[in-house]
Amino acid sequence: MTLLQTAEQIQTMQIRGAGKIAREAVAALRDHAETLPRTGDVAAFIREMEHAASILLGTRPTAVSLPNAIQMVMRDVRTARTEEAARRILREKADAFIWSSRTALDRIAAMGANHIPDGSIVMTHCNSKAALGCILEAKRQGKDIEVYATEVRPWNQGRLTIKTLNDNEIPTTYFVDSAVRSMMKEIDLVIVGADAITVNGAVVNKIGTSQIALCANEARKNVIVTAETYKFAPRTILGELIQIEERAQNEVLPDDIAATLPFVRVKNPVFDVTPADYIDMIITEAGALPPHLAYTIMREYLGWGLDELQNQFLGARTGTEFR
Amino acid sequence: MTLLQTAEQIQTMQIRGAGKIAREAVAALRDHAETLPRTGDVAAFIREMEHAASILLGTRPTAVSLPNAIQMVMRDVRTARTEEAARRILREKADAFIWSSRTALDRIAAMGANHIPDGSIVMTHCNSKAALGCILEAKRQGKDIEVYATEVRPWNQGRLTIKTLNDNEIPTTYFVDSAVRSMMKEIDLVIVGADAITVNGAVVNKIGTSQIALCANEARKNVIVTAETYKFAPRTILGELIQIEERAQNEVLPDDIAATLPFVRVKNPVFDVTPADYIDMIITEAGALPPHLAYTIMREYLGWGLDELQNQFLGARTGTEFR
Amino acid sequence: MTLLQTAEQIQTMQIRGAGKIAREAVAALRDHAETLPRTGDVAAFIREMEHAASILLGTRPTAVSLPNAIQMVMRDVRTARTEEAARRILREKADAFIWSSRTALDRIAAMGANHIPDGSIVMTHCNSKAALGCILEAKRQGKDIEVYATEVRPWNQGRLTIKTLNDNEIPTTYFVDSAVRSMMKEIDLVIVGADAITVNGAVVNKIGTSQIALCANEARKNVIVTAETYKFAPRTILGELIQIEERAQNEVLPDDIAATLPFVRVKNPVFDVTPADYIDMIITEAGALPPHLAYTIMREYLGWGLDELQNQFLGARTGTEFR
Amino acid sequence: MTLLQTAEQIQTMQIRGAGKIAREAVAALRDHAETLPRTGDVAAFIREMEHAASILLGTRPTAVSLPNAIQMVMRDVRTARTEEAARRILREKADAFIWSSRTALDRIAAMGANHIPDGSIVMTHCNSKAALGCILEAKRQGKDIEVYATEVRPWNQGRLTIKTLNDNEIPTTYFVDSAVRSMMKEIDLVIVGADAITVNGAVVNKIGTSQIALCANEARKNVIVTAETYKFAPRTILGELIQIEERAQNEVLPDDIAATLPFVRVKNPVFDVTPADYIDMIITEAGALPPHLAYTIMREYLGWGLDELQNQFLGARTGTEFR
Amino acid sequence: MTLLQTAEQIQTMQIRGAGKIAREAVAALRDHAETLPRTGDVAAFIREMEHAASILLGTRPTAVSLPNAIQMVMRDVRTARTEEAARRILREKADAFIWSSRTALDRIAAMGANHIPDGSIVMTHCNSKAALGCILEAKRQGKDIEVYATEVRPWNQGRLTIKTLNDNEIPTTYFVDSAVRSMMKEIDLVIVGADAITVNGAVVNKIGTSQIALCANEARKNVIVTAETYKFAPRTILGELIQIEERAQNEVLPDDIAATLPFVRVKNPVFDVTPADYIDMIITEAGALPPHLAYTIMREYLGWGLDELQNQFLGARTGTEFR
Amino acid sequence: MTLLQTAEQIQTMQIRGAGKIAREAVAALRDHAETLPRTGDVAAFIREMEHAASILLGTRPTAVSLPNAIQMVMRDVRTARTEEAARRILREKADAFIWSSRTALDRIAAMGANHIPDGSIVMTHCNSKAALGCILEAKRQGKDIEVYATEVRPWNQGRLTIKTLNDNEIPTTYFVDSAVRSMMKEIDLVIVGADAITVNGAVVNKIGTSQIALCANEARKNVIVTAETYKFAPRTILGELIQIEERAQNEVLPDDIAATLPFVRVKNPVFDVTPADYIDMIITEAGALPPHLAYTIMREYLGWGLDELQNQFLGARTGTEFR
Repeated sequence: MTLLQTAEQIQTMQIRGAGKIAREAVAALRDHAETLPRTGDVAAFIREMEHAASILLGTRPTAVSLPNAIQMVMRDVRTARTEEAARRILREKADAFIWSSRTALDRIAAMGANHIPDGSIVMTHCNSKAALGCILEAKRQGKDIEVYATEVRPWNQGRLTIKTLNDNEIPTTYFVDSAVRSMMKEIDLVIVGADAITVNGAVVNKIGTSQIALCANEARKNVIVTAETYKFAPRTILGELIQIEERAQNEVLPDDIAATLPFVRVKNPVFDVTPADYIDMIITEAGALPPHLAYTIMREYLGWGLDELQNQFLGARTGTEFR
Repeated sequence: MTLLQTAEQIQTMQIRGAGKIAREAVAALRDHAETLPRTGDVAAFIREMEHAASILLGTRPTAVSLPNAIQMVMRDVRTARTEEAARRILREKADAFIWSSRTALDRIAAMGANHIPDGSIVMTHCNSKAALGCILEAKRQGKDIEVYATEVRPWNQGRLTIKTLNDNEIPTTYFVDSAVRSMMKEIDLVIVGADAITVNGAVVNKIGTSQIALCANEARKNVIVTAETYKFAPRTILGELIQIEERAQNEVLPDDIAATLPFVRVKNPVFDVTPADYIDMIITEAGALPPHLAYTIMREYLGWGLDELQNQFLGARTGTEFR
Repeated sequence: MTLLQTAEQIQTMQIRGAGKIAREAVAALRDHAETLPRTGDVAAFIREMEHAASILLGTRPTAVSLPNAIQMVMRDVRTARTEEAARRILREKADAFIWSSRTALDRIAAMGANHIPDGSIVMTHCNSKAALGCILEAKRQGKDIEVYATEVRPWNQGRLTIKTLNDNEIPTTYFVDSAVRSMMKEIDLVIVGADAITVNGAVVNKIGTSQIALCANEARKNVIVTAETYKFAPRTILGELIQIEERAQNEVLPDDIAATLPFVRVKNPVFDVTPADYIDMIITEAGALPPHLAYTIMREYLGWGLDELQNQFLGARTGTEFR
Repeated sequence: MTLLQTAEQIQTMQIRGAGKIAREAVAALRDHAETLPRTGDVAAFIREMEHAASILLGTRPTAVSLPNAIQMVMRDVRTARTEEAARRILREKADAFIWSSRTALDRIAAMGANHIPDGSIVMTHCNSKAALGCILEAKRQGKDIEVYATEVRPWNQGRLTIKTLNDNEIPTTYFVDSAVRSMMKEIDLVIVGADAITVNGAVVNKIGTSQIALCANEARKNVIVTAETYKFAPRTILGELIQIEERAQNEVLPDDIAATLPFVRVKNPVFDVTPADYIDMIITEAGALPPHLAYTIMREYLGWGLDELQNQFLGARTGTEFR
Repeated sequence: MTLLQTAEQIQTMQIRGAGKIAREAVAALRDHAETLPRTGDVAAFIREMEHAASILLGTRPTAVSLPNAIQMVMRDVRTARTEEAARRILREKADAFIWSSRTALDRIAAMGANHIPDGSIVMTHCNSKAALGCILEAKRQGKDIEVYATEVRPWNQGRLTIKTLNDNEIPTTYFVDSAVRSMMKEIDLVIVGADAITVNGAVVNKIGTSQIALCANEARKNVIVTAETYKFAPRTILGELIQIEERAQNEVLPDDIAATLPFVRVKNPVFDVTPADYIDMIITEAGALPPHLAYTIMREYLGWGLDELQNQFLGARTGTEFR
Repeated sequence: MTLLQTAEQIQTMQIRGAGKIAREAVAALRDHAETLPRTGDVAAFIREMEHAASILLGTRPTAVSLPNAIQMVMRDVRTARTEEAARRILREKADAFIWSSRTALDRIAAMGANHIPDGSIVMTHCNSKAALGCILEAKRQGKDIEVYATEVRPWNQGRLTIKTLNDNEIPTTYFVDSAVRSMMKEIDLVIVGADAITVNGAVVNKIGTSQIALCANEARKNVIVTAETYKFAPRTILGELIQIEERAQNEVLPDDIAATLPFVRVKNPVFDVTPADYIDMIITEAGALPPHLAYTIMREYLGWGLDELQNQFLGARTGTEFR
């Protein structure tokens, strides 16, 4: 698959899930390098790779994992002295990231499974690898569990989820997104994934997550978010808001119908924001922490110092106004 | 349209909305009588009409308006002495009910429009004639209003709603059911309909209503329920629970997919229950009252005395056990 | 049993439960009359009976049912013209009250059983005949139910409750009062009795009820109160507060220990107050109503008009100050 | 004092408090009639009185008591056959209303005092005769009580309140409106008055009341509203919203300062709306009832039937649209 | 006292309180070593001590302090090269732990006393040395304070608490566990101890603590938890749930009664879990921190790095599954 | 301006705002040193400066920034070996602090402006430089924003705020403090300053802040606190409570009126405490963090280790009691 094909599949949601997007993008970068002729011109190679990276970055402007993953891979490439070194660093970093990202899911699964008591019923939303990993690991440990899964309009990712659960012989109940509060009394806990996590522990995830969390709190059910550490968004420390991606209106209303309704506009936000107060625990590969400690993850694991961030982002933007 | 056709259209949701179901059922009864040959045998006529009524009652077991409307029409028919009298009573009662039911919506619209301030944005759910009536009346009064409308899976009744709003040139925003909490900050109040109202003011309405009301309460937005008085369910005074109708699973998951997923069941409840605490006002043709006064409506308007109810329902069921 | 014996048994809690106290007191009055020699002096008879009534009234100053029951029986006695008439009225009223009180429990049981779905787990507190009646009726209807019952310090009435449940072969879980919140996730609904209900729907019941209701609300579990209509306290319409009875401190701390602890006082309130907001439904023999309609019960069933109340109680107390 | 003088004093808030406004307006009507020459022309007399009434009604468009009081007095005047009869009816109705209004406060005081336990600390806001009446009555009964009173910007009615309390030797603490939440832990209950009460039990009262009630609920303190029954607003049954009066901006910001601030506007709402959920009890001369029963008061005491209201107000407005 | 005696006293709750258990267990280990004959065989000595440690660990499987204390003492013993060194390390570590544990309580008392304002009333539950220490220190500082103490069924530890308070001449009120919500309006703050604290700040403490905290939050009263740092449970970072210990059923229901009740089971959980949201502050010897910073304590004071934990616990358990 | 003049202006609130107080106090110290004759006696110089510092510290006993700023400047002065060195250190530290304090506001403004979306309406309270900085920066970035500002009795600092906003051509709405809840539905977010922040994230700010935050939470509006890091109060880690300053009663009630009211006392607290749960974010010059991480700021930025604090403050106070 070429880089452009990967970019398109990310764009069209054939590749979905923040972890997979990050790994596929990194793999695409790595593989793209192999298609470039060796010229010995390191600057040209880096320019070419930066261009490739920018194509990938443009596919999903609000995905936090994508820029983090690309930057993690590209950072040392940029300072390479020879084309050969740049190519080697790119390969190594890409492989390391992909391995680490996969290990992350296994570790999260191991910890998350601990939080699923034998005999319990778990509600999930959308099709999160990390959340499903916990459920499947609990099943592998011999626990007798059930899952309640939503449909997840407009893309119906719930169908992917119930297929995975079915194939693992986990009894599953499937229902429309509007039935969440109605089903809440029957379940024991909620486990979902995350697309991004802000410095104050708010979780950006598939549209609908925040009302599930609200319903869970109303009924005293635990809400567990599973997220690899690269989902944490350090620039929110500087007050940067995460912009919620809006997708095409014809995902919700066919164009021919929409054409007959000039007074109607469609809003199709992909994500919403769940406040930290509605989340009991965020399980990362670095441990299971309360959402209020998101900053600790950013600092200890992602290694973002405040000074570094301020110099890189805030200073650049605000220019000389600080005088 | 024959009675059987009406019954089928109620069953298949071609006829929808509790008010319309009640009126169409009553009209079907009335028209059905005209198709019966005049025999002079009043008992045979009543038997035939009771049979017709039972067909209609069987189409939607949880619809509160249907039995209320049919009983209101049939009660005096049952005591008629001649076929001619029975036919006349049937016609008169049916016409009166239909007229009163239509007047009800206009009165509700007039009161509800008072609760929609000029310049406000209203969220609605499903396709309630009573709720839409308030919005259209506010528009007719020259108020500058906007509407936010949900999609309402699995039947997408939201498309009917936005068509009506569009045709009345009311700017409308349309979105999936999962986006309710996300949109809640942008709106000013919620107006929905009701399928049934219990004695303690809980509102049975289209699945999803209760989480909209929960989200509205979290954000200090008013929730107004519009309901004709025949939606109030007197037998709940005796502790009778309203059973939530479940519809076919293939409305949510196509049969061919379901067939491949033996571990998956679909739950497809049509309604949910919104507690009185999340509702600010119920607007009926008898006035705009707080939900806690549902019993007052039952007593003052529907004329159900407790003794009568106990004799008719509770006594019948519990028989000699009271000794 | 003599009247004095009944009075003592009420005082020492050998006779307990508001319904039983009311019926036993009324029966004691009735039987006491039989022990009085017939003199033909109606005034003397009434004086004697008033004295007997005042003895009973003094045993439990906060019991609402006691004065209501006694007054209901004594009211017409007071206006009797002959001793014979007075004796007959007393007998008839007493028998009617006792029969009605017993029917009340059966009717409440029938309605309450409707609110206990098959397969559900009910938490109860103390040893309420009305609450247990609902549970036993649900069992008799063949429902598969379980009960969670508290210990109810300091009198351990929970032991009476679990004995009744055990004898009816209902699986029961028993635990200390402190474990309520811990157990709340395992149950489906709460059913308790009531000692008194105020005009704004607050329920006075066995100490501990209000924290059970609070815990139930935190976990979105329904709270049902069962109460005969004579528990409603009309004088609260005039702002009269229900005084919470305090019992002897040695029920909680033995006297010999207390004697060694001069800085320690014991508080031993028998009841607490649960606000209407934590109660979903009050089931009376007159129907299942929301707590906010307590006044409707007082007016429609107990027949207390505001004017009558004001004249009788408020006027008497405030005298000429109203000029 | 002439009618115009009374009107001006109501307008300029020299006469304040809904009860006093109602009584003074009624007295002004009564006294105004005496100034009119006797002509024998009943129609002219009524026209003149209607004109006088409209002047009074125009002084405070949102005061609910004013139109209620005037209508109660004028209703029968309008149907009088002779000038003499009209004059007599006016005098009698006016005197009866004034007497009843004064009795109302005494009855409210007697009931409210019951709700102030000995040794308690009461917070009040603004300068409500009804609320102060309860406090003073509790003091007269020998209870040891304290009061916390707000300043009540911009008119500083708190100063009137603390003067009354001081003169009755009640220890009082006085503070700015912003300190309410800060003081809330020190007090035991809140007692305030009301300007109007809607059909769903919402209380319209002096700006600031709703945040006091919110703070009281956060700290589990009871909130008692005291209100004569003429404060209840029957037309809210028809969905009519109570319009919150805005007063002149120079009450808040002096004109000379405002003139220098072209980008600044002042909002000076006189009242706010406290939802029924934050109110434990409304004490009226007809009894102490929960706010959810506001409609019961309107129906039983004010005698407003729904049909009558609909005919008079809703029918008039919506005209032939109901066809 | 021999090691077996200590173990039994821990088992039978003669030794109670997490701090005392930890210190007594460590002292028992230390003293047990003195009873072992000197053989010069370090491996045999360590085996013997590990065996002794495992006996102590088995007495209370859910006590967090016990394994932490034993491991802190045993860790370096395990790597000793000679019997003499092992014995010396054991003595030194044990003495240091005991001293540090005692200092911890004094430091907590000093900080906690700052949080008890002069004139305040404190509610406490069970018999926590750390919580009582704060109260006694406040008294020693001359503050005029009162205490409200629960009975704490089924072991009545409240009697120990009120004895200590009485002996320190602190006015104390004692009541059954069900009266907590009833008493909550009379107190100013809650101070309790803790048995264990999880990574997300949830506090495991004596059954009943969580409903006290819930009641305190309902009434806006502060809840302070006092806990030595060894109460923090680092393995919860890996998703390990703290198992709530269940004790014998005859502590709640005598065996002879239980034998007659085959349908009754007793649940006797020793602890419950209070969520961080209901706790204002955890006071440790390392400072007074909000519950959400539990992880900071684990990392900064207990020195548990995530890598180390994952290697030791998670890796071991999940084995090769991470491939 | 002499040091005494500065002290007086701080005392009389001519100099107000915690940042300005800190900078002016530091400048006053620096300038005061210049007025002292050079004697070569370093000890005398330090004594003199300590005396000057103590005068400044005495002006506002609860201001957290004042002691922090003075200590930051004086710490190294105290260890200087020569008068010349002491003078140089004083100058340098003072200039650095003032520069850093001013930079802080700019950085906070840059981050805070990110949190003000284009088209939004911001509520603010009192006259916080940091909060206004964010608003003005958002305006400078071309955002179309509006502000709602309170009056802030008794000092009416709101007038300063609306003047600044007016001069920057920002449309502003001004209202009395009691109207906060009434206005809350019209705004989008709240931004305020802080006087001090405790270790558990509670914010001490101008009286009224906590009820604004409560109202904002009721309506799901974000609350942002802006605060330089020197506002964080490290000694709260040791359980030290921040004492709320009370100012003169005649700020609220003129002395001549107060003199006539012997039963009235005035409470005039300058600040109140907003719990962390009502705050979404604290924006400092070190980043935008959730309130629960206040301790992280104290440790990472202010450099207060727990050991150091305990030695300096707790040890000193509790003396030998720790034995």
